[in-house]
Amino acid sequence: MHGEVNKRRKNRRPTMVDVAREAGVALRTVSRVVNDDATVGSELAKRVHDAIAALDYRPDERARHLRLGVTGTLGAAVRQLSHVNPVLRAVERAARAADLMVLAASTEDDERLERRVVESMCRRRFDGIVLEPIGADHGYLLPELAAGLSLVAVDRPVLGLEVDCVISDNMAGIQAAYGHLTAHGHRRIAYIGDDERIFTAQERASAFRASVAGAGGGLDGMVHTGPIEPGRIARALTTARAGGATAVITGNATISVEVVRGSDDRRMAIVGFDDSELATLLRPDLTVVAQDDQAIGATAIDLLRSRIADHGRPVTRVTVPVELLARGSGEQPPP
Amino acid sequence: MHGEVNKRRKNRRPTMVDVAREAGVALRTVSRVVNDDATVGSELAKRVHDAIAALDYRPDERARHLRLGVTGTLGAAVRQLSHVNPVLRAVERAARAADLMVLAASTEDDERLERRVVESMCRRRFDGIVLEPIGADHGYLLPELAAGLSLVAVDRPVLGLEVDCVISDNMAGIQAAYGHLTAHGHRRIAYIGDDERIFTAQERASAFRASVAGAGGGLDGMVHTGPIEPGRIARALTTARAGGATAVITGNATISVEVVRGSDDRRMAIVGFDDSELATLLRPDLTVVAQDDQAIGATAIDLLRSRIADHGRPVTRVTVPVELLARGSGEQPPP
Repeated sequence: MHGEVNKRRKNRRPTMVDVAREAGVALRTVSRVVNDDATVGSELAKRVHDAIAALDYRPDERARHLRLGVTGTLGAAVRQLSHVNPVLRAVERAARAADLMVLAASTEDDERLERRVVESMCRRRFDGIVLEPIGADHGYLLPELAAGLSLVAVDRPVLGLEVDCVISDNMAGIQAAYGHLTAHGHRRIAYIGDDERIFTAQERASAFRASVAGAGGGLDGMVHTGPIEPGRIARALTTARAGGATAVITGNATISVEVVRGSDDRRMAIVGFDDSELATLLRPDLTVVAQDDQAIGATAIDLLRSRIADHGRPVTRVTVPVELLARGSGEQPPP
Repeated sequence: MHGEVNKRRKNRRPTMVDVAREAGVALRTVSRVVNDDATVGSELAKRVHDAIAALDYRPDERARHLRLGVTGTLGAAVRQLSHVNPVLRAVERAARAADLMVLAASTEDDERLERRVVESMCRRRFDGIVLEPIGADHGYLLPELAAGLSLVAVDRPVLGLEVDCVISDNMAGIQAAYGHLTAHGHRRIAYIGDDERIFTAQERASAFRASVAGAGGGLDGMVHTGPIEPGRIARALTTARAGGATAVITGNATISVEVVRGSDDRRMAIVGFDDSELATLLRPDLTVVAQDDQAIGATAIDLLRSRIADHGRPVTRVTVPVELLARGSGEQPPP
């Protein structure tokens, strides 16, 4: 035990007090030198710098943040870190270009986890947060926003709160997918989407329902929304087939994977929402509604930096256009 | 300007001083209540709690960390956040089970960026860091380790330093892939791998060279390593074909994607290192050397927590077994 205690002592990080002792100056002098106070005499400053070098003293960033009020860090609270996320990639790039570090955490689309992650980032006083919000109740954000939190929502707005956000034109995307399939002769089309607790999922499903309703005579559609679970998606696909659907529109790239996996005969026409690297590896390749991830990420960082610079500026909501990319799976006629 | 200043003032977060004023107690009393000091009288404590509620005062986690010396947070510095990373997913799960939050940042396999990310996490006094190390020079870690940094390397060891690490059995994986292809009749096999600056890439390429050398008469191999760029990989594949290779072993899942994309006729046999969701979507499906991501992630968190608990414990290096999954692409005979 004794040896361990000694090791711990030996290994502790040197503090400003150690530097002051080593340099033979007052603690206050060390603090002024560390904070680049130009009124410290050059000889005194040199003694402090020598002591800092001798002890390999490193300032504690947390203490520095407390003094300066900025951290140079943005938080990103996203659905899942370990999934392909081109928007997060664009966010990281834009932040890096502005010399800001992004520290990210997963919310797993779990409301409680989102709250824990965001509140922790607030308590760390990150300069701002990029959030993929989940759920309908974001009341917990109110006191943080009132206290000066800079926040931008991506992919989904923060429901019920006036917060900057950047989302894709979901309505136009679904309309384009639906129109594309009917133009190729499909009369019964299924939509298989994400959990409608998620705003984007709800918006896409609604756009699909509106497309079907607007198309009028002879056209029919069926909507299957729910959690992204392979079993649930496989069952939705089976039901759609049994109901006579000849084409599927998917709500996101993960659902596209499961739908392709389930359509082994490749006879269903498919238009996927979201492009992905595997879209061009399939036979036929996947027709998709591609989001402009680069624009979403860069716009999110722009809005966040503007908000940090001026907390009172008007709330901005940006809708980014999408594009239908025809590659084969969406151009198959009904059997 | 005046309005803006007022807004800023109104929006500033309440401090302990505000709480003390509101409660009519000494600042020191507020501090004791916030830190759950049981020696504060219950009536005094109630006044402080009422003031905290009235002002919606929230303690600054950074100040709290400074006092307590722990942050409840692990850092993860990985190649790229926005890519599929099952190890990071397992790391997050294991950390969450231990009530630790993971804040992650991308290093983009750039040595300077890795250093910037890791040093920033050190200055924030994260309790420990999970690192996918890049490059040969990790000298910058020495003072951090001496000062008590708890670090575990995943996928690759930290070269030249005694640091806990968890890696896959790359040697056994490549030997299994090579043996599998020769058993299916292939005599000229190409290895297309990642940049050999990365330890894992170097180890896999070396294992391939050793397999070829050990196989003896009539067998031949060619090695193409370099950055993960579609153009570079496409050229390597063309060269391999022109040189008479009938089979390819890839160094990781991203390279597998590009090799599949480039072998449009599906006549090359392929064994990929790393499993992925698209491996079972191809025609034929992809034979892979699968890593045990779950075991790697959970072991990394185990090692990190043990290191945090006992900074002087012996350095541990864990090698996790891999498994060859035959699915079709690796069982094709030479044409």
